[in-house]
Parts: sequence; C-alpha cells; structure tokens
Amino acid sequence: MAGDKMSTYAPHMAKNLSMETMDVSSAKWITLKKIQYLDPQGKQRVWESAERQTRPANSETDAVGVVAVLRDPSPTGKGTETSNSGPRLLLQKQFRPALGKVTIESPSGLVDEGETPAEAAIRELREETGYVGTIPDDATAAAEGFVMWNDPGFCNTNTKMIFVDVDLSDPRNRDPKPELEEGEFIESFTLPLDRLWQELNRLDGEGYAIDARVGGLAQGMEMARQWRDALGKEGDGSKRG
Amino acid sequence: MAGDKMSTYAPHMAKNLSMETMDVSSAKWITLKKIQYLDPQGKQRVWESAERQTRPANSETDAVGVVAVLRDPSPTGKGTETSNSGPRLLLQKQFRPALGKVTIESPSGLVDEGETPAEAAIRELREETGYVGTIPDDATAAAEGFVMWNDPGFCNTNTKMIFVDVDLSDPRNRDPKPELEEGEFIESFTLPLDRLWQELNRLDGEGYAIDARVGGLAQGMEMARQWRDALGKEGDGSKRG
Repeated sequence: MAGDKMSTYAPHMAKNLSMETMDVSSAKWITLKKIQYLDPQGKQRVWESAERQTRPANSETDAVGVVAVLRDPSPTGKGTETSNSGPRLLLQKQFRPALGKVTIESPSGLVDEGETPAEAAIRELREETGYVGTIPDDATAAAEGFVMWNDPGFCNTNTKMIFVDVDLSDPRNRDPKPELEEGEFIESFTLPLDRLWQELNRLDGEGYAIDARVGGLAQGMEMARQWRDALGKEGDGSKRG
Repeated sequence: MAGDKMSTYAPHMAKNLSMETMDVSSAKWITLKKIQYLDPQGKQRVWESAERQTRPANSETDAVGVVAVLRDPSPTGKGTETSNSGPRLLLQKQFRPALGKVTIESPSGLVDEGETPAEAAIRELREETGYVGTIPDDATAAAEGFVMWNDPGFCNTNTKMIFVDVDLSDPRNRDPKPELEEGEFIESFTLPLDRLWQELNRLDGEGYAIDARVGGLAQGMEMARQWRDALGKEGDGSKRG
C-alpha cells in the first residue's frame, strides 16, 4: 500500500553477537549513580540509577520524539474518503541492540545544544524521514506538552513528545528523502490512527518491540474510545463554564 | 475534593543528599552491558546498554503498570452526572531519587515469579492503594495489551500497562487502605479522564515529573479528541467490513 513503507534499510538484517558486563569507567554514553537520599520520615537510604552522559548543559531534556500525523487535506487527496486513507501516524523500525529486537518507535533524537525541543523535532523528522513538518498553529501549547520521564524507578532519561503536522499536499512532501547518519538504519512506515492499538498488537505478535511512548499514545486513544461518552461531556462543560 | 487524595505519605519531604558514580560490581539492582552487534550491512559495531538485574527467569516482562479507572455506576453514585464526577484515572505521587523529584505515575510493580501480568496488576493495585480492581470483561485482550519498552536506545526495561476497572459502588472500595512495604511512601490521587492532558501540564508546571506511560495515555486521548472525526469512522468501517 502506498505510504506504508517509505524507505528500506533492512533493520531485520542486524543481530547481536555478544553481550558482556561493562565497567562504568569504560562506558562513553551511560553511567551508573549511587544516590544517598532522605526518605519522607528522615531516614537515610540508597538508590541505584542509570544515566545518560549526553544531556546538554542547561537542558532538562535529553531527547525529543516526533508525534507526526500525515494527512492530505487537498481536494485531490484521499485524506477524508475512507478509513484506509485517513490520518496516519509516522513510525520507524530499527534494530536496537539493548533489546536484540527490531523496535517500533516514533522518529526521535537528542536535542542539540542551543536548540529548542520544537526545532529539534522538525529537524529530526526531516533528517530521519525526509518529511517537512510544522507545529500545528492551533495547538502550540498542546503540541509541545511536557517532559516525560521514561522509567523514573530505574533511570533519569526523558523525552519531550512533540505533535507535528505533515501536509502531504505540500509539494516538498511528495518524494521524501531521508538523510541518515552513518550507522543509522531506519525504515519509516505509517499506521492508520484509527487502528493504532490493534496494529501495534499485531506487530508485537510478529516479534517487534513496541516503544512505550508509541504504545501509550495508542492506549490513550483506546481509552478515549472506551470512555467516549464521558469525554464528550468536556466540550459541554467548557461552554457552560 | 473527595476522592482527589486518598492517602498522604508526604513524598515532598524526601530529598537527595549526594550522588556518586558507582562501579558496576557494587550495584545490586542494575548493570551496564557492552553489546557487540552486526549492523544491517554486516559491519560489526558496539552499543552500550543499562539493564535491571531483577527480571524473573522465564519472563519477558519486568513490571506492570495499572491503568485503573475509578467509576461509580450505582444509581446513587455521581459517576454520570457531571464532568467533575465522571471517570477518573488513579495516579500516585512518590519521590524518585533517580530524578530528585516527586513523580506522577501509575500504580506499578515488578512481576513476581510465577505470576501473570494481570495477577500482578490486581495485587499491586490492592497493596499500593487498597482498591479491589477487576480486569474489564469486555476488553480482556485489549486490557492486557503488549509489552512496552521504556527507552530502547538506552536500556532494556519494559512494562505491561494493564487496564483495570475499579467499581466505587463495591462496598470493598468504600474505605481503601493501602498496605505499603517498609520504605514505600506513595500518595494516591485521581485526575478526571476528560482533563488528563491539561491537569498533567499543570502538575508539570508545578515541578512534578510526569512518567512517560501516564503522559502517553494523556497525549493519545488528546489525539483522539483532535482526530475525532477520523476515529469515528472506524466503527462504520467495522460494520461495513
């Protein structure tokens, strides 16, 4: 199906060869921390934590994820005709040595020094997929959202998930060409928004590892569907208030 | 407001005292791995990864998160009258040394040996909040979903986010009493489903650290609202198919 698969860098061809415990002094990207803390009753306790070594100075954000929705609003576009050609979420397959699996993730990347999260999202989207995206005008505050902490009991890494609109009627988005870095092998593809949860379940069953940020989006959309009546009331409440 | 805050264990009273780099040989809970792998073009490369040391043998799942929705379906309940008394998501505040902050998370816990993820979710919910929950009958497959990987570029930790229904008209849920372990200080509270994204933005602004699994749910619900027309079509499509 057109749009399903926009670039092939054969992530399934990769595989792990060996894994060994590594001393912290020889690690370049990550480190381990021993933290002494006072619990709420004033008792001193110890916690162990993993950290990235790459967070930019003066930044609270490690990375951005790009929640990119592809749509075609043009009269000739198929964006509103059938379920199959409705809005689609842009996703990526890549081999991740930490899991030894091919993952399903959003486009993402580390925030460069001096760059805002929104700028990083637009740049990473273009580099990794070739698409030119924009931050939705009507949702600037909602687009940027807040920093999300990936696993607070285990590590201090975090991500800002940025909403980005990709207008397929824009001529620049007709034949997108990613510009991957040396050593990056990413296959981009899309899933229909209206079947995201079911499709991710299917991909999980096929052996892909679903990133929690992507899985959370799908689960939230499923909750919105289940609690549609309750959520529908919000609009009425706003008008009354 | 009743139900907003069900137990107070003063997570804000905790604080970090010191943080030092820790050698991998003295870490009990986490470790670092150096992975040799072949990229898709057959070139040998190295990746660094952090891991938990606690995943049960024969399990692919580290932990469960509990997506618990509190609702009162009884005739005397307020569950369907106004937006303020509609379904609410059960959340927790706790101090996390890895971040040096109080987080907003779902109830969660490690899966015990021999326990299914659904059993772990019901057990953790009861232990951490006192609530008796059930896996929704009409959504058993959807309830359990799939394993979500928290940060595949950095570590191999994962979580299964389980939907759990908490019926407030059940007499056992009238006065829930958590049974926290020694050293656990968790304050449970709820947020209305229909304002989850806005409320998490507010809490982020107040200095809380939002867990990515919770943030993802809220962002997905916000997407469902934005793309309501497109998502509404799914039902029609199913009937046609």
